[in-house]
Amino acid sequence: MKLEKNQKLLFIGDSVTDCDRAKPEGEGLFQALGTGYVAIIDAFLQSTYPELGIRVVNKGISGNNVTDLKARWQEDVFDQKPDWLVIMIGINDVWRQFDSPFIPDRHVYIDEYEKTFRELVEQTQSKAKQLVLMTPYYIEPNPNDAMRHKMDQYGKVVKQIADEHHTLFIDTQEAFNTVTKDLYPAAIAWDRVHPNHTGHTLLAKTFLNEIGFDWRK
Amino acid sequence: MKLEKNQKLLFIGDSVTDCDRAKPEGEGLFQALGTGYVAIIDAFLQSTYPELGIRVVNKGISGNNVTDLKARWQEDVFDQKPDWLVIMIGINDVWRQFDSPFIPDRHVYIDEYEKTFRELVEQTQSKAKQLVLMTPYYIEPNPNDAMRHKMDQYGKVVKQIADEHHTLFIDTQEAFNTVTKDLYPAAIAWDRVHPNHTGHTLLAKTFLNEIGFDWRK
Amino acid sequence: MKLEKNQKLLFIGDSVTDCDRAKPEGEGLFQALGTGYVAIIDAFLQSTYPELGIRVVNKGISGNNVTDLKARWQEDVFDQKPDWLVIMIGINDVWRQFDSPFIPDRHVYIDEYEKTFRELVEQTQSKAKQLVLMTPYYIEPNPNDAMRHKMDQYGKVVKQIADEHHTLFIDTQEAFNTVTKDLYPAAIAWDRVHPNHTGHTLLAKTFLNEIGFDWRK
Amino acid sequence: MKLEKNQKLLFIGDSVTDCDRAKPEGEGLFQALGTGYVAIIDAFLQSTYPELGIRVVNKGISGNNVTDLKARWQEDVFDQKPDWLVIMIGINDVWRQFDSPFIPDRHVYIDEYEKTFRELVEQTQSKAKQLVLMTPYYIEPNPNDAMRHKMDQYGKVVKQIADEHHTLFIDTQEAFNTVTKDLYPAAIAWDRVHPNHTGHTLLAKTFLNEIGFDWRK
Amino acid sequence: MKLEKNQKLLFIGDSVTDCDRAKPEGEGLFQALGTGYVAIIDAFLQSTYPELGIRVVNKGISGNNVTDLKARWQEDVFDQKPDWLVIMIGINDVWRQFDSPFIPDRHVYIDEYEKTFRELVEQTQSKAKQLVLMTPYYIEPNPNDAMRHKMDQYGKVVKQIADEHHTLFIDTQEAFNTVTKDLYPAAIAWDRVHPNHTGHTLLAKTFLNEIGFDWRK
Amino acid sequence: MKLEKNQKLLFIGDSVTDCDRAKPEGEGLFQALGTGYVAIIDAFLQSTYPELGIRVVNKGISGNNVTDLKARWQEDVFDQKPDWLVIMIGINDVWRQFDSPFIPDRHVYIDEYEKTFRELVEQTQSKAKQLVLMTPYYIEPNPNDAMRHKMDQYGKVVKQIADEHHTLFIDTQEAFNTVTKDLYPAAIAWDRVHPNHTGHTLLAKTFLNEIGFDWRK
Amino acid sequence: MKLEKNQKLLFIGDSVTDCDRAKPEGEGLFQALGTGYVAIIDAFLQSTYPELGIRVVNKGISGNNVTDLKARWQEDVFDQKPDWLVIMIGINDVWRQFDSPFIPDRHVYIDEYEKTFRELVEQTQSKAKQLVLMTPYYIEPNPNDAMRHKMDQYGKVVKQIADEHHTLFIDTQEAFNTVTKDLYPAAIAWDRVHPNHTGHTLLAKTFLNEIGFDWRK
Amino acid sequence: MKLEKNQKLLFIGDSVTDCDRAKPEGEGLFQALGTGYVAIIDAFLQSTYPELGIRVVNKGISGNNVTDLKARWQEDVFDQKPDWLVIMIGINDVWRQFDSPFIPDRHVYIDEYEKTFRELVEQTQSKAKQLVLMTPYYIEPNPNDAMRHKMDQYGKVVKQIADEHHTLFIDTQEAFNTVTKDLYPAAIAWDRVHPNHTGHTLLAKTFLNEIGFDWRK
Repeated sequence: MKLEKNQKLLFIGDSVTDCDRAKPEGEGLFQALGTGYVAIIDAFLQSTYPELGIRVVNKGISGNNVTDLKARWQEDVFDQKPDWLVIMIGINDVWRQFDSPFIPDRHVYIDEYEKTFRELVEQTQSKAKQLVLMTPYYIEPNPNDAMRHKMDQYGKVVKQIADEHHTLFIDTQEAFNTVTKDLYPAAIAWDRVHPNHTGHTLLAKTFLNEIGFDWRK
Repeated sequence: MKLEKNQKLLFIGDSVTDCDRAKPEGEGLFQALGTGYVAIIDAFLQSTYPELGIRVVNKGISGNNVTDLKARWQEDVFDQKPDWLVIMIGINDVWRQFDSPFIPDRHVYIDEYEKTFRELVEQTQSKAKQLVLMTPYYIEPNPNDAMRHKMDQYGKVVKQIADEHHTLFIDTQEAFNTVTKDLYPAAIAWDRVHPNHTGHTLLAKTFLNEIGFDWRK
Repeated sequence: MKLEKNQKLLFIGDSVTDCDRAKPEGEGLFQALGTGYVAIIDAFLQSTYPELGIRVVNKGISGNNVTDLKARWQEDVFDQKPDWLVIMIGINDVWRQFDSPFIPDRHVYIDEYEKTFRELVEQTQSKAKQLVLMTPYYIEPNPNDAMRHKMDQYGKVVKQIADEHHTLFIDTQEAFNTVTKDLYPAAIAWDRVHPNHTGHTLLAKTFLNEIGFDWRK
Repeated sequence: MKLEKNQKLLFIGDSVTDCDRAKPEGEGLFQALGTGYVAIIDAFLQSTYPELGIRVVNKGISGNNVTDLKARWQEDVFDQKPDWLVIMIGINDVWRQFDSPFIPDRHVYIDEYEKTFRELVEQTQSKAKQLVLMTPYYIEPNPNDAMRHKMDQYGKVVKQIADEHHTLFIDTQEAFNTVTKDLYPAAIAWDRVHPNHTGHTLLAKTFLNEIGFDWRK
Repeated sequence: MKLEKNQKLLFIGDSVTDCDRAKPEGEGLFQALGTGYVAIIDAFLQSTYPELGIRVVNKGISGNNVTDLKARWQEDVFDQKPDWLVIMIGINDVWRQFDSPFIPDRHVYIDEYEKTFRELVEQTQSKAKQLVLMTPYYIEPNPNDAMRHKMDQYGKVVKQIADEHHTLFIDTQEAFNTVTKDLYPAAIAWDRVHPNHTGHTLLAKTFLNEIGFDWRK
Repeated sequence: MKLEKNQKLLFIGDSVTDCDRAKPEGEGLFQALGTGYVAIIDAFLQSTYPELGIRVVNKGISGNNVTDLKARWQEDVFDQKPDWLVIMIGINDVWRQFDSPFIPDRHVYIDEYEKTFRELVEQTQSKAKQLVLMTPYYIEPNPNDAMRHKMDQYGKVVKQIADEHHTLFIDTQEAFNTVTKDLYPAAIAWDRVHPNHTGHTLLAKTFLNEIGFDWRK
Repeated sequence: MKLEKNQKLLFIGDSVTDCDRAKPEGEGLFQALGTGYVAIIDAFLQSTYPELGIRVVNKGISGNNVTDLKARWQEDVFDQKPDWLVIMIGINDVWRQFDSPFIPDRHVYIDEYEKTFRELVEQTQSKAKQLVLMTPYYIEPNPNDAMRHKMDQYGKVVKQIADEHHTLFIDTQEAFNTVTKDLYPAAIAWDRVHPNHTGHTLLAKTFLNEIGFDWRK
Repeated sequence: MKLEKNQKLLFIGDSVTDCDRAKPEGEGLFQALGTGYVAIIDAFLQSTYPELGIRVVNKGISGNNVTDLKARWQEDVFDQKPDWLVIMIGINDVWRQFDSPFIPDRHVYIDEYEKTFRELVEQTQSKAKQLVLMTPYYIEPNPNDAMRHKMDQYGKVVKQIADEHHTLFIDTQEAFNTVTKDLYPAAIAWDRVHPNHTGHTLLAKTFLNEIGFDWRK
């Protein structure tokens, strides 16, 4: 297992990460981590490796795009001094281009996305022991679907930044693609974005497998 | 305009028809027709042909499939004695097969759908002056998408019954297909089923054009 | 159709325009345009001319009179940089003289109304490609009714300003007068001001016909 | 003063009488008489003639027409054994003909109104010491207004029944007509039916003057 | 009638005056005058003397004592420029001495009460055409009751100030004393302070009789 | 201490007993005993004599008079098989005569009160090991106050029945009289009936002293 | 993996199972399985073995003990025709003996517990393909704690019945004991009964490991 | 009785003291002292020694530890000028170490606890006539339980500071230990911290006995 004793593991992202977490802290009692994949990861870590004392913090905020992350990076990342930082951002950057096509102020196009994302990673790399970059996703099995297609391009940006900076990398789109061979997207998310418990569990399982979690410990 | 003086025009269907209409009556003051395409149609009829005195009734109920319609047909159709009857049903019959694939009690397969739908039409034909059959739809432009594909088959059943019984027929799927050439489905309905005002307006406009409504009267 | 590709169409006014629109933005997802004539116009534009990409913004605020508009003109009009600006104001300017006759601070008499309205139009004319002035109205068929009579005078002021400045002009009172030949006012608005869906549809239809909207496109 | 010691004074009618009274009793602590003219009458009786011990009961129900009264006459009038019975009904009988013109099931036309009203009065006359018939009204000063005109006809029916049966009679329309010489209807009721405190006070004052109330006692 | 055309009549006081009035204005549509004696007075003035155009304003605030009034006198009295000013204050000044006997910071003893009240009257006399001083009261018929006894002393202070400055004067305690000969206090107010509609009507009737109101006009 | 191991102690009465207790059971977790004197007695018993295992049940219902008790005696007393039964009833029997003087159906006069109360005691005496009769009260120090005077008469009835049947007897009026020498009634209950925590504590303390509770155990 | 294609897996129990599941069905859309271990198990099954189409049903009801299960066994177990049945019951049977020691009607002592539990298992064995018995638990590491000690005895009863009838068996107490070596009980459940997400995850993980779930599939 | 006429008795602490008290004042009408031991103490003082006029103030705030008290000491203690000051703090200081073991920022370790507590006592001693120090507690009878063990150490710190400064001292842990010989902790507090009415009564009784309260006065 790649996580070590007493490390702080911070997740930042949009509504998929947020999931009604406590504001502003994002950790502690009373379901402060929300009800999504972050809470599932935390619960498996605490119940399986209680001796490690991993501290999990959730800094997702619904509706955020990469520009919104940049605006709160000092407070929500640097000031938190995480050992591990997990970033999943980009769904809203793409989605607004499709559900609000005529309001360009709410779009983040791929160049700005890439530039901002890379900037955040570069500034952070020396300050955290481990970065994990998760792609954005769209729970749509057809790769030629217009929004899925664009999301894939954003995902490739994430992969490229991960490669350049030798971070851990999680291809969430790939994870959903595997499941949607057997399940229609509506069985995971009516809107193909906000997953039900099945979808969040898939995200959590993929993450935990990536970091070498021992399920039968 | 095909509607005549003092006719009663009754809509029956699922949540797309329902749209928070008043229960149990479904007509009258205080937005009793709900907020969907039925209300839009009524508003155009009243504001453009006030001299005709068309009486519009909404009997949609959220979550209904064709079997649910059958169970309340006596009370919600026959007892109402409509001159015109508009039926749009089938989305839930299909959707449950995709979002709840392992709960077969909630599925209505195509044979039962066809048999029940035809039975309702046959029983009603002699009692109403005009029947209008609207297909179910799925706001997904890819005809090979599994759920869209199945919805098209249900839509064909509706067309066939309409042809057999010489009713008016409205292909709602076709209407959405035209718009999704320019707009991604998420701009009309995040879940590709429950339309925003744009989608409901499209349904209403298609209906009104079908019955010869004069927009510039 | 007079609207052109990618134009921004902004509506400003009182509660008839507002209709529970999102604050402060007045555009975007989740019924941000409210439930009145602005939302109806937008829905017809999006469903019929999706290729034009018209951006509709609602800046109505309940209770406003022309003086209130002036106070927020910089932020809600100039800063928005609309291509088209539609103004419908004056109902509250008149109504308070009749429902709160002894509280003169809440009245806007016709001289102040005319002066302020003209000032707003003059300041804006060079900044927007097209202005549309809509009269205030009172859904009362008797032209000798005291409040209807006064509202007509305010409507004439709007017409005169529209003529002077060669803007588009919509006589909403005339539109309601046509319908109230067949419908008693209470069938459109119990208080003769806040229309039900029929009344809002009449406003929207009148506007769309004025700008050359093609209903059967 | 015509009311005598320990008499029970019961009001029955529609929403103007109801005014959020306690259900089902309509008397007692905690504002059980509602907030309308019945409560005002009671308060003047209690504060001015506390030694008489008049018991006031409110049996108004919002939306009622004369047919609705008939259906609950046994329980809400006969079983109550009132000494005085005050009836004000008819506004909804007329209003629905104007605000819901195409739903005839909700209209009560003048013949049925007269027949039912007379029947109730005849059945009750021997059981109560004093009947008071109040006309319905419409707070509209123009006697040629279509709804006002019809309401006047219903009011004449009430007057005729009162004359035939020698009951007390209160012309509420006349009372409002006096005030609307100086006040526009919107200053009393935006919808010309549900009065504000000024309108309810006018009804109460008219009633109390009719029964010989001594205001300076 | 002592009130003259277009005069502004302002009431200031505690919860008995406040009665859920609109904040901050205290006048206008939607029951802005609250539900107590101020609203009753206004309704009689509007319904009986609509031609006078009296403007009534309510500036009561629940829980206030005379010190609280002083703190908001500039804004709530002087800035309002009333023609008539009606003051009823003192109940809380006394009540806290009895219900919170050990929290002296919340008591206003009689010397401070007299000094502050007189100061307010003196500062205002030249600015308003007519002052009306109403005593505080306690709906308790036993003059030897400790709180009633103290309230009487505060009432005498009000009378003395009224005499000195030749203002109108209303003895509300006397009004309640008359009624409590026949009604036990609990029939007017369970807590002997906050009256039901009967008690508020008594206050309004007393006021209106004092100013020469013609009930049968 | 008169209570013995494993005894069941049941309280029945009106709102003073009820105090928001759980319905229908009136015992168990989550503050099921309410927030009044019953809860205080229970808490002292459990915290001081945990070894006795006394089971306390609250069967108070707001608004009840002695007639209401009779109607539910089988279910709420006999079926419960209490060892001790504590009865405090009569406040509403009297109060309605004073706050609703003209609604005699809600009054319970002293003859009916005595007859019903005695009947309940006689029927119960053989079934419970110990009866405790508590007087009704009115927190008013003046014995000549009309309602206090009547309440005293009802209290004497209770005392007489207690004497006749050799039950325990608690004079709650006397307890309040002692305290109101130093505290004005409003410091215990604004309405002189529903006590604050101080008043409930007084009732509990009086009860516990009566049964020989050892406070310093 | 022991679960086979298209099997129905039904969980029955108390609040730990219930966790705000949908009533009455306990399956389907919108988080119908609640938020506890049942939902976690379902999410792992759907996300990892979507091709199996396992149907999970939750029939937990808060507060239930084994006697309550018996009362609803026909409807909630037999009528459901599950392939697998998982039973976890007993916590309330024990807990009420400790938190409500003086209310014996709410206790289920060990003999009744054993008899009822065995009876349910015997009646069901022939009707379901697989039974899984889970012990009740108390998240308290001290085996000499009075309630933990008693809970262990109830757990032994479950083990014995599982052995007798060759069902699957899960020792939930043992699972918690492992974790409480490193975590104090309050980190899992303030009340040592209702687990947070960590505790529910532990239950789910233990179950899934028992049935041969492949976490890395 | 150690309390003297007109003294002010202020309690400061965490949620056990707070118990939903009024904010910010913490004294006065409408249950301003909350529902816990402070309210019980006040009620016994007022009902038994009304002639002393003791003024009780509650300054508990849920979730506070000793560091939080320090931060508000000037405002909530010094500015209040209490005669008696009662401090009970430390439960959260310890609890967070057990329920949130991996979030050290929320822990207050024993050295900081002792230093801060002593500092507060020293600064306050000259300003208040009497200090009362109450230990924190954990309602767990097993002294070897990890959290109970640590709580005992914090309690010893309080005792030592009390001894050093000759304040009154109350060993709340000892009080609970006595009761938990007969009652399992869950009968007082499911979470072993927030007591039900029984537990709060125990705290109040212990306090009152310590100050020489005469229960039978």
